[in-house]
Amino acid sequence: MTTETSSPHAPVVDTTRSPYARLRPVGVGDVEVHDAFWQPRLDRNREQTIPAQHEQCETTGALTNFRRAAGHTPGEPFHGMYYSDSDVYKWAEAASWSLASTDDRAVAERLAEVIRLFEAAQDGEGYLNTYFSVDRVAERWTDLVVRHEMYCIGHLTQAAVAHFRATGSRALLDVAERACGHIEARFAPGDVPGTCGHPCLEMALVELYRATGDERWLRLAVWQLDSRGMGVLNGSEYLLDHARLRDQSFVTGHAVRALYLYAAAADVVLETGDEELSAVVDRLWADLSRHKTAVTGGVGARWDGEAFGDAYELPDRAYNETCAAIAHIFLAWRLLLRTGDGAYRDAVETALYNGVLPGLSQSGTEFFYQNPLADEGRHRRSPWFTCACCPPNIARLLASLPGYVYTTSDEGLWVQLYVGNSARVRLPDGSSVGVELSCGLPWEGTVQLRLTPVEAREFSVFLPVPAWAGEATVRVGEEVVTPERRSGYLVLTRTWQPGDEVRLDFTMPVRQIGTHPRVAAGHRRVAVTRGPLVYCVEQSDHADAAVADLRLAGEETWRPEFAADLLGGVVTLHTTGSALKVDEDEPLHRPYVPAEPLPTRPAEITAVPYYAWANREAGPMRVFLPLLP
Amino acid sequence: MTTETSSPHAPVVDTTRSPYARLRPVGVGDVEVHDAFWQPRLDRNREQTIPAQHEQCETTGALTNFRRAAGHTPGEPFHGMYYSDSDVYKWAEAASWSLASTDDRAVAERLAEVIRLFEAAQDGEGYLNTYFSVDRVAERWTDLVVRHEMYCIGHLTQAAVAHFRATGSRALLDVAERACGHIEARFAPGDVPGTCGHPCLEMALVELYRATGDERWLRLAVWQLDSRGMGVLNGSEYLLDHARLRDQSFVTGHAVRALYLYAAAADVVLETGDEELSAVVDRLWADLSRHKTAVTGGVGARWDGEAFGDAYELPDRAYNETCAAIAHIFLAWRLLLRTGDGAYRDAVETALYNGVLPGLSQSGTEFFYQNPLADEGRHRRSPWFTCACCPPNIARLLASLPGYVYTTSDEGLWVQLYVGNSARVRLPDGSSVGVELSCGLPWEGTVQLRLTPVEAREFSVFLPVPAWAGEATVRVGEEVVTPERRSGYLVLTRTWQPGDEVRLDFTMPVRQIGTHPRVAAGHRRVAVTRGPLVYCVEQSDHADAAVADLRLAGEETWRPEFAADLLGGVVTLHTTGSALKVDEDEPLHRPYVPAEPLPTRPAEITAVPYYAWANREAGPMRVFLPLLP
Repeated sequence: MTTETSSPHAPVVDTTRSPYARLRPVGVGDVEVHDAFWQPRLDRNREQTIPAQHEQCETTGALTNFRRAAGHTPGEPFHGMYYSDSDVYKWAEAASWSLASTDDRAVAERLAEVIRLFEAAQDGEGYLNTYFSVDRVAERWTDLVVRHEMYCIGHLTQAAVAHFRATGSRALLDVAERACGHIEARFAPGDVPGTCGHPCLEMALVELYRATGDERWLRLAVWQLDSRGMGVLNGSEYLLDHARLRDQSFVTGHAVRALYLYAAAADVVLETGDEELSAVVDRLWADLSRHKTAVTGGVGARWDGEAFGDAYELPDRAYNETCAAIAHIFLAWRLLLRTGDGAYRDAVETALYNGVLPGLSQSGTEFFYQNPLADEGRHRRSPWFTCACCPPNIARLLASLPGYVYTTSDEGLWVQLYVGNSARVRLPDGSSVGVELSCGLPWEGTVQLRLTPVEAREFSVFLPVPAWAGEATVRVGEEVVTPERRSGYLVLTRTWQPGDEVRLDFTMPVRQIGTHPRVAAGHRRVAVTRGPLVYCVEQSDHADAAVADLRLAGEETWRPEFAADLLGGVVTLHTTGSALKVDEDEPLHRPYVPAEPLPTRPAEITAVPYYAWANREAGPMRVFLPLLP
Repeated sequence: MTTETSSPHAPVVDTTRSPYARLRPVGVGDVEVHDAFWQPRLDRNREQTIPAQHEQCETTGALTNFRRAAGHTPGEPFHGMYYSDSDVYKWAEAASWSLASTDDRAVAERLAEVIRLFEAAQDGEGYLNTYFSVDRVAERWTDLVVRHEMYCIGHLTQAAVAHFRATGSRALLDVAERACGHIEARFAPGDVPGTCGHPCLEMALVELYRATGDERWLRLAVWQLDSRGMGVLNGSEYLLDHARLRDQSFVTGHAVRALYLYAAAADVVLETGDEELSAVVDRLWADLSRHKTAVTGGVGARWDGEAFGDAYELPDRAYNETCAAIAHIFLAWRLLLRTGDGAYRDAVETALYNGVLPGLSQSGTEFFYQNPLADEGRHRRSPWFTCACCPPNIARLLASLPGYVYTTSDEGLWVQLYVGNSARVRLPDGSSVGVELSCGLPWEGTVQLRLTPVEAREFSVFLPVPAWAGEATVRVGEEVVTPERRSGYLVLTRTWQPGDEVRLDFTMPVRQIGTHPRVAAGHRRVAVTRGPLVYCVEQSDHADAAVADLRLAGEETWRPEFAADLLGGVVTLHTTGSALKVDEDEPLHRPYVPAEPLPTRPAEITAVPYYAWANREAGPMRVFLPLLP
């Protein structure tokens, strides 16, 4: 038995002491990723993305705004959008998480410098927002609907919590506590309703409570949630102010805002066990997962307002903002922590591979804001955006990804993401177990786990059986075992000896995925998936047919093939389908003739992972392929 | 032979003297509509819509802006959007056209008062835009990209031309000529490139040239077109500045702006015969009609930017702005005037019934801005909009509608819209012919035409055979004849005696219309049409099944039935189709199983005209129904 503390190093959502959490975190700093798929991505995030985004914060003036607020640049105008502070905070959060994984001096120094700027820009009352710091002082807190002041402090606070957990330093945490204290004084719980047009602070406050133990922050989070429906945001449904949160029954409004709000409610439930709020979150999750989630885990179908559509509104040209997929992960992860239900884990995995990763170019320095499921070749990634929310959101998620690989519970150890790594995990009894995980995901369904408890010890190991998995074979050592399955996990309970090995082999059938028949855009069309990945067809791979003309019979066998030199190394899928013989001059609208099937010819079809699309020459792309006839 | 002038009274697009027009107009004032379908709509437009819109111009401050600019209301702030002048101009145009049909004293007085306001608001240099009149004088013409100054003058000019043609008064024409003269001086042809972020003035200038005979206005129109691609609008593709207009090859950008621009190019071609420009317009029309037009004639699929999508991008939740359907009519009408090709006429008719009419409530006082092809019941009409372009655009089109019923050509008389009316038409030889047209459209395919030339006279009568028509039987008197068909028209050439009657009977089969196979959203779905009308299913008529669950086999027979008390009197269509037995709890995404057809049950399906949707209790609506399996 070790004498080490049971606290994880740099947990992402720290339910270590949350009374209503079933699962507890394993920290970013406890998990060293060495995975053929993920390690290059995490390295690129640290080596390319995070430095490039610091540079963007510099060139756009977002950092200069803090110098200006600190009085370092007299006469300087404000630069960018009124929420541009949040770009820098998200960068600081990404940099903080990366320090939990790697002792990178350059990042640490750059971050320390940025934190000094935050400190210098904050005023004596704790107020901090560079848009209002110099010449709009009288306008502070006059427009909660639009101006994102609390939102920005939310991102500051998330960065501060990450920095504190990753480094142990209170430097940024102090800034955040002063800023939150300013808000608490201005919008006092039980007294002055206060909530922001863009949620974020609510979630951050619960984490601040977890990081500091100060119940003021939990109270303030609850108050902000309960301020919804009081008209602070003009009763706007788009801003989730149309009803008390406790009375909200359907997923609506701006997708990122909605999911940040619901995630905060889930956070509060983890701390308070509030049954009413818990039922609301369950109800909203049911609406989200049954009616409003794309096959990629992308959410928020509408381009107008970056908003959720109606039930079953899942068009090809979905908006599916990268940030919304990240918010989807935030919500699902919190529900997973509460319940240990693998359906939430599956949602995290799907959104990660297919909702978030497409947002990032192969180079790591260009980004998608929207992630449509079909395109004609004009939607391409950009290095930055005027509204630059997505790029640093991806960076902070990837930097914190090691914190999503495992959880623990009273029963033992849970693998949550199949990502190759070496970890040292503290079990709830305080004992420590070394874990070596190697796997072939997302390309092959092979998982090997080697456990090294300090001494023989009985506990359970939970291994996810994702919805995409085919047959699963489990061996402990050489012995094939048939473990219990519980809510999407194989549960191996035994007395583990140091060096015990578990081997799990999934088959990964290629699936043609149809959609609920109420989804108009899904009618007689399928998406192709294998393992956790959704695939797409790109024109690049189809010299002989327009991708718009490709058709499937629905009974195809797809042949996986690893292409080491393609798109950073991917498994491509191949089948023989059909291509319509299209007469381009035919009228756009014409009487339907049942007796005349469209003429087709055989066509070789190649599918590539959707996350990798738009990394070659521009051209049409489709996730869904129509079924004949 | 009469001695009357051959000029039509209040022609809409006056190609009377256009050298490159095949067709010439019959004026609004020459056609007295008495049609079971249209007369109540035109009456309601005059009696309800136009007065209500004047009231809206008053309550929104759009009229007060003119008083303010005239110096009548010192201290008054500007109200509304920077283009709100155009609301009043469009109202004035609608009122003007209505005076060509009806001698309405109240409208005439109100209009005279508004015109006096315009005069008073115009400054000594001819400048007129109330946003810039009082306190933004220095900002005039500093932002052609955004500020719509030329656009507003375009609407002023269109109103002025309408007023001049309807009343013979030059009062408003003088204001418009001064305003256009100001623009001509500021953006001199051949010297200073000038063109507006929102086209409108170009089309108006050609009409001003036609109304006044002053070639300055034609030259200025051409110059504005040729200023495209010079970077005046930052080279923006969205604003049609990405290339010289003469080099533009695909329909793109903001739908209304694009179509107003293309319509102006078509106008210039009618006057100059410019072959290069003519080829451009033909190319753009081909792209529009083959790739980018909804079955309703709605255009501009995208909610983001009110813009055209890519080729074949025709989603259910299309934007299809009411103004864009009107712009579609403007373009198609000009191409019809040039060619006499019935395909353009069909486009006018389709867009009128199914792209524009849905924009108007049964009451005539509520409006749709967007016209999606499916909805869950949350899209409802409004009395007005912050951006109020659509309501007065509908009003001016309806007020001018009698001007779209006939044209003439060297060959004789062309019916263009089957609308019951009494008309007196001047043939190109200067002789006059009385025309009585009665018809059962859009409900029944019966047309009766009685011609009363002053004396026996040989000429051709062109009767459209729309694409929707089934068998056509033509009688002259009692005799069944088999006239030549030419480009979508039956051509009856003979010596007409006073009192000769033509009777035309179409069958109007109900059609299930499919879409080009490259339209992803059209896959295995059909829209139901009869005659010129596109139909839809509304939840109101389906107590036993969700409209989302309705399915067709594709071989249904539909039974038309006139329902006098429904939606102002409509032919409904009935069939027995299928309803899916839907398990709402089924997962949203799941493997497709070819061998398992979805369970269905028979279902009675009722379709109503799409133009009439959302006039009952809110609920789901679909234009396209999926085909089994």
